[in-house]
Amino acid sequence: MVTRESPAAHLQIVRTREALREALARAPRPVGLVPTMGWLHAGHRALIARAHAETATTVVSIFVNPRQFGDPADLAKYPRNEARDVAICAEEGADLVFAPSVEEVYPPGFDTSVRVGEVAQPLEGAARPGHFDGVATVVAILFDLVGAERAYFGQKDAQQLLVIRQMARDLAIPTEVIAHPTVREPDGLAMSSRNVHLSPAERAAAPAIRRALLAARECWQNGERSADILRDRMRAELSEEPLAEPDYVSVADATTLRELKTIDGPTLVSMAVRFGATRLIDNELLD
Amino acid sequence: MVTRESPAAHLQIVRTREALREALARAPRPVGLVPTMGWLHAGHRALIARAHAETATTVVSIFVNPRQFGDPADLAKYPRNEARDVAICAEEGADLVFAPSVEEVYPPGFDTSVRVGEVAQPLEGAARPGHFDGVATVVAILFDLVGAERAYFGQKDAQQLLVIRQMARDLAIPTEVIAHPTVREPDGLAMSSRNVHLSPAERAAAPAIRRALLAARECWQNGERSADILRDRMRAELSEEPLAEPDYVSVADATTLRELKTIDGPTLVSMAVRFGATRLIDNELLD
Repeated sequence: MVTRESPAAHLQIVRTREALREALARAPRPVGLVPTMGWLHAGHRALIARAHAETATTVVSIFVNPRQFGDPADLAKYPRNEARDVAICAEEGADLVFAPSVEEVYPPGFDTSVRVGEVAQPLEGAARPGHFDGVATVVAILFDLVGAERAYFGQKDAQQLLVIRQMARDLAIPTEVIAHPTVREPDGLAMSSRNVHLSPAERAAAPAIRRALLAARECWQNGERSADILRDRMRAELSEEPLAEPDYVSVADATTLRELKTIDGPTLVSMAVRFGATRLIDNELLD
Repeated sequence: MVTRESPAAHLQIVRTREALREALARAPRPVGLVPTMGWLHAGHRALIARAHAETATTVVSIFVNPRQFGDPADLAKYPRNEARDVAICAEEGADLVFAPSVEEVYPPGFDTSVRVGEVAQPLEGAARPGHFDGVATVVAILFDLVGAERAYFGQKDAQQLLVIRQMARDLAIPTEVIAHPTVREPDGLAMSSRNVHLSPAERAAAPAIRRALLAARECWQNGERSADILRDRMRAELSEEPLAEPDYVSVADATTLRELKTIDGPTLVSMAVRFGATRLIDNELLD
């Protein structure tokens, strides 16, 4: 690890649209944006470090976006710790943290939504109605506000990446959307802010997701091209773990997210699985 | 009129997002944008001339936006004459004309919409379902694409102005939305590209709209504060003109467009009236 001199002394925290605009007016270009909902983990660290390496000014937004939560209970229990998050931002070389209130992102009278069509409908879109409208809307705001040359997102949220790419391209927002590989625990569990909710037994069970995805990958690498056989293989693997309750198991076109019969191009294999009250997602790209 | 040396020699026409970005990369700031659907008239001339006076680079977009037409027949008959429009842009001092194809604005696979809530619902929103979704979406694209400091719209389309202001503010698009007074024919008829469709008899009848609006203004200036009395006054005035078929007659809060019982603040008086197959709108702001 490179030693940095007092990185926190350099980091600026802004909480309003106006203060962010002012701070960015004199920021060196290009600007890299890492949008987060806080409770930063090694996955976020990797995004911030990459933005820091590739751009002249790294902006991290920390905003738990109420519009992308269908369930108020899910929103209420989403973990938060700003002081810890800011320290992590500083350690990874961020220059600016944008940590607005809900009222600052959605001012009184806010009444606009951005909606992406087909690619936002299946999988997470079907499981969480309105979720991707909330994501597309807040990311459009952040992109327009920051005017970054590049924005960094984790591949773990593969559908979110597709939705954001579609939104930015369609609306001619000149921010390049960059996907960064999923960062994992040593046992293969994808880093997620939600992992904190897992009981020790659930935590021990959660790597079943990764095992199931890797089993599908192995099938595919061995030449299997039937999507149903891959789905069955994943469900069989998950069924070995009593605490794993699959929500969906998908083998879909990696661009349109249409479910496949036969694999004959880039394919996204993904799943959502509940462990007790915690719902986790993960995916593998077969290409 | 100020004499200009060969303005057309200066004007640049671009047809792609990419060419527009390139042209704007070296354009003097600030940039003023005048979004139009072509068939330019004196109202557009005033917007272009104002942008030319107030900004260093004036961009006029000419794009008949299919997404804001509910009725394919209305879209098909919308008048077009690019050569004439470009000449007018040059005469009024525009620097850049963006005249894209439908496929350039909405590339294959385009699948995003921008929707504004309450203020887009009544009046034109109720009469033309989907209209303002199309307007908000195309203007978000144009704003993101051009990155203008200012954009100019005519007050004739008062609800459109409110929808665009709401969209730009909510999505943090840093383009200031400027309303310019409606430009009128000598007999009071508001300039509109649709006026070309009026038969001579309909054209002669159309100033009834303006008379009705001014009658409402006179009532209000004389102290009347009952919205219903103003509506009745306007309907009575329109009924004097056999060719005028009112679609709606509205007395609404100028910010929310909620219909009023009592006038006690800034008020938008507006109407849509059919003359044969042509539907015209106009308004007066009571403030």
